[in-house]
Amino acid sequence: MSEVYYLNNIKSPSDIKNYSDEQLLELAQEIRQVLIKTVSSNGGHLASNLGAVELTIAIHKCFDSPNDKIVWDVGHQIYTHKLLTGRYDKFSTLRKEGGISGFSRPDESEHDTFYSGHSSVSISSAYGVACANDIKKHDNYTVAVIGDGSLTGGLVYEALNNAGRSKSKLIIILNDNKMSISQNVGSVARYLAVTRSKKRYVRMKDRMEKFLSKIPFVGVKLANFAFKLKTDLKNLIYKSTMFEDMGIRYMGPIDGHNIEQMCEAMETAKSIEGPVLLHVNTVKGKGYDFAEKSPSLFHGISNFDVDTGEPKNKGVSFGGEFGELMCKMAEKDKRICLITAAMTLGTGLERFSKSFGERFFDVGIAEEHAVTFSSGLSKGGMLPVFAVYSTFLQRCYDQIVHDGALQKQKLVLAIDRAGFVGDDGETHNGLYDVSFLSSIPDITIYSPSTYDEMKIAFGDAFYRSEGVVAVRYPRGGEYEIPEDYTPSLKAYDFYGEESDTLIVTYGRPFGCACGALKILKEQGVDAGVLKLNRIRPIDAGAIDVAMKAKRIFFFEEGVRSGGIGEKLAATLLQNGYKGEYNLTAIEDCFVKQASVPALMAKYGLSREKIAEKIFENKQ
Amino acid sequence: MSEVYYLNNIKSPSDIKNYSDEQLLELAQEIRQVLIKTVSSNGGHLASNLGAVELTIAIHKCFDSPNDKIVWDVGHQIYTHKLLTGRYDKFSTLRKEGGISGFSRPDESEHDTFYSGHSSVSISSAYGVACANDIKKHDNYTVAVIGDGSLTGGLVYEALNNAGRSKSKLIIILNDNKMSISQNVGSVARYLAVTRSKKRYVRMKDRMEKFLSKIPFVGVKLANFAFKLKTDLKNLIYKSTMFEDMGIRYMGPIDGHNIEQMCEAMETAKSIEGPVLLHVNTVKGKGYDFAEKSPSLFHGISNFDVDTGEPKNKGVSFGGEFGELMCKMAEKDKRICLITAAMTLGTGLERFSKSFGERFFDVGIAEEHAVTFSSGLSKGGMLPVFAVYSTFLQRCYDQIVHDGALQKQKLVLAIDRAGFVGDDGETHNGLYDVSFLSSIPDITIYSPSTYDEMKIAFGDAFYRSEGVVAVRYPRGGEYEIPEDYTPSLKAYDFYGEESDTLIVTYGRPFGCACGALKILKEQGVDAGVLKLNRIRPIDAGAIDVAMKAKRIFFFEEGVRSGGIGEKLAATLLQNGYKGEYNLTAIEDCFVKQASVPALMAKYGLSREKIAEKIFENKQ
Repeated sequence: MSEVYYLNNIKSPSDIKNYSDEQLLELAQEIRQVLIKTVSSNGGHLASNLGAVELTIAIHKCFDSPNDKIVWDVGHQIYTHKLLTGRYDKFSTLRKEGGISGFSRPDESEHDTFYSGHSSVSISSAYGVACANDIKKHDNYTVAVIGDGSLTGGLVYEALNNAGRSKSKLIIILNDNKMSISQNVGSVARYLAVTRSKKRYVRMKDRMEKFLSKIPFVGVKLANFAFKLKTDLKNLIYKSTMFEDMGIRYMGPIDGHNIEQMCEAMETAKSIEGPVLLHVNTVKGKGYDFAEKSPSLFHGISNFDVDTGEPKNKGVSFGGEFGELMCKMAEKDKRICLITAAMTLGTGLERFSKSFGERFFDVGIAEEHAVTFSSGLSKGGMLPVFAVYSTFLQRCYDQIVHDGALQKQKLVLAIDRAGFVGDDGETHNGLYDVSFLSSIPDITIYSPSTYDEMKIAFGDAFYRSEGVVAVRYPRGGEYEIPEDYTPSLKAYDFYGEESDTLIVTYGRPFGCACGALKILKEQGVDAGVLKLNRIRPIDAGAIDVAMKAKRIFFFEEGVRSGGIGEKLAATLLQNGYKGEYNLTAIEDCFVKQASVPALMAKYGLSREKIAEKIFENKQ
Repeated sequence: MSEVYYLNNIKSPSDIKNYSDEQLLELAQEIRQVLIKTVSSNGGHLASNLGAVELTIAIHKCFDSPNDKIVWDVGHQIYTHKLLTGRYDKFSTLRKEGGISGFSRPDESEHDTFYSGHSSVSISSAYGVACANDIKKHDNYTVAVIGDGSLTGGLVYEALNNAGRSKSKLIIILNDNKMSISQNVGSVARYLAVTRSKKRYVRMKDRMEKFLSKIPFVGVKLANFAFKLKTDLKNLIYKSTMFEDMGIRYMGPIDGHNIEQMCEAMETAKSIEGPVLLHVNTVKGKGYDFAEKSPSLFHGISNFDVDTGEPKNKGVSFGGEFGELMCKMAEKDKRICLITAAMTLGTGLERFSKSFGERFFDVGIAEEHAVTFSSGLSKGGMLPVFAVYSTFLQRCYDQIVHDGALQKQKLVLAIDRAGFVGDDGETHNGLYDVSFLSSIPDITIYSPSTYDEMKIAFGDAFYRSEGVVAVRYPRGGEYEIPEDYTPSLKAYDFYGEESDTLIVTYGRPFGCACGALKILKEQGVDAGVLKLNRIRPIDAGAIDVAMKAKRIFFFEEGVRSGGIGEKLAATLLQNGYKGEYNLTAIEDCFVKQASVPALMAKYGLSREKIAEKIFENKQ
């Protein structure tokens, strides 16, 4: 079957409620084909979505969305949900500008409960909805669907602790594919692995009951003892999962590719008072060989060849260069440790993890712990580097303040995907790190534009700085860097001609600013670019350069509020600057998915837009 | 015994190692007297410290600090540690300017491993130290001491998950006083309560072993079955705590006021490979009747009368007014829900919690969950208000972005203790909230100076704003507000005379700015105060007022970087402002303990300092 038959006719989840078992199987087959085809051409999350096809079908068969609220954690498993909620006809626009998002988006469909993209959130927000239902005496269900990887985040534990004592109609579906994004780590994963393998778990309870009732008469003393023991045992057995210790009724594990079995379990879960956790085993990448064999590689992937499983785009990137650099530096300096929060591949650390196993720590999706743990490593004499995406660094602001800066010890943050990320959209752009990090006392921040500058920055971070030092770099590679630019070792550089008009920028837009100079030159406008390498603190020399300009145009790939453009303005004004100041940065909004070049243009940071802005304001 | 005998002679923990059991008991008695006396006069954390006296003595008897690193969570139980590590002679300066801190401070003693003040951190940082020891092949122990309250924070879970699979020499001491700051909540607390009451826990394992070996012959089939069952049972029993599910060896519970028993257990713990959790039961407030009876009240307390247990200072405060206001508003609007992270008393919500139980949620020390859960309540149609101290709000930056602002739903943050907090020092000052919150798209922030303005702000927040709205107010009450000031309903106010010199400020320093006008008047300088009520976004009318001034002096009780002073400067400069601009705010540093008036003066925000700054810069 290569034609799409079912999906053309599914406009809402209610359309599948009367499907026969056989039809549902065929539907699942059809969905898998659509997933593989679409992701191979658009990129996206494949392996996780392939694993959740039957699970999603079962959920929509058993629950009544949108009256029952389905809350998807992260959104790495939401594609089937999108296909079953009337979005098949737009699915080819997945992750494209103006198209369907790769994550949960209430502005796309009433079936998407929350905007999502960060991990470990679903139980907290679902429990909030469930409590609101309690207060309003509504009897709808709230369903949180969460992967085992997300289970390593502390937010989940806080939510379970809070929900555990309630009587709310909350059903937590644990989609356990043993994998999460990288190979799942930590003791909870090990614990799940044990539970997962215990197919007899539920049955054992019955066996035990029967056995205890059959213990023969062996004297009064032992009998009395046996009675007491029975109570203790029952207690232990019925409360034998971590989840039940926390007051959440546990069911499972059950086969996550058997729709019938899942529906049965879901109906049982609906009949139980209070929160229930339903443990479902799925196979990540199910139905596509390459993804089953390499689920980490096919977790989030760019476009690829369906027949060979080979990615179509390969290339040098800041992340890759960072990984190689760390290997080189760790070879020489035995104190260097690398910490990741479940992003070994994403942050370019695969080789490091293999070559320096003892000094490599994957702590799970646990950014808070990553920072505080790093602080401990530092106290113990190591030189810790926490490699993390900008957007996930938001998770550990307090830890950077309290367990980082306040401790007055070296702690290095390697921040990947700073700035626009492109296809992943609102929840993944790294537009805030400069603002929130800048508020932290004594922090140093570098924002290199080239690989060479990144190397210089890490050298400074390791050996010529104190306290918390962040080095932030964009997703992808160097961007429009002119061939005649060579970085200095200074905290700032100057490119172009000295004139009254000064462009100030840092990071990725630097290449665009240089390009803009050429366009302006052709229009008869002279200008120069002041490029900040270290953006906090801004070097006194850079401020001197700016003070001399008559017109300053600052371009920033980050939010305006609290950014470097505002800081420079305040410093200049306090120093008595009397010239013009024009700041282009991301004003209040969440930036939606589109390619990076499209976003650079849309937000006024492309070479053309920079030139245009200056030309318009020339005197 | 009312004389201090032992403490005068204890210069380091090694001094107690050879004390007899009786001497240790007398020492404990002496310490309690010092604690009660000092806290009754200086204020501080009493009940938690009284509960940890014997525990701390046992720790210093069994471990070799500072070679073994003791990591105290938060620091609410650290006073005895301070007394045993050579700080008795300075202990009367507890929490005073230039004196001994109420928390862990490495700059005070080599025995204080980390700066601390925020909860749930210790296992993460201690595990970092332990891993560094592993890498360096050092065989010292790392000891994390953590209360049951701190156990509700997700960071603990992330740390246990990470540490669980290791072989590091990490000993976690769970100081279980059943209470934490408020009555402890959640299912982990309930779980501990069960475990706590099982005095027979360790013994039961043995009993079970014996029993299983005694099961008589009852036919081959049953015997085989019994064998299998034994294995399952053993597995269940030996892995029967949440902690052991996470790969942490569990010991306990043991009596936390029996030094001998604790020392025995600690020595056993030292001999076990890999992380061990030692569960110790203590009585919060032990040895001081009033504190034992009202442990929450005596958790953190201002100075009080030792004989009656009555606090010496009572008065109106923003927190108290906030609590009353919420009761009034919730009476009328059935959607209003209040959420606290274990701070019912601290945030003034005791009456609300009793009157509106169904709409009150204490989620434990779990600020991340508090925000995401609130987001769920909002989605479910409620009007959630998360009441939290500014310093702890740092914990949930990402949640405010991702589960707050991005969701485009109403979410109200009631931020207490914004600005200087005084005696608690570096870890508790609320100096960052304006900066980090400002970076969030579409957020609205109010910073009232008076109770009336606070009421107006919450009215605006509930009924005249969209999305995330924060209302922030200082610890304590109204501050130097002139009698002739009456708040308007506008986003800004003007006080004083129109002239070339404009003071701009918000929140607490407003009263000081008004006071400064009087001083300046006497010196022949005319000035006016532009007071921002809503600080983000700054009202266009306020910007117009500022544009007309020739000299602007901005005073901010918060960090400079990313604050409102910088933002206003950038806006003015971009609008073509050509006047002078002088910004006084907290420059890079962590502000140490001192009274609020002392801090206001030290950081240039008192009436005298404001007047001085303007007089110096007058033209």
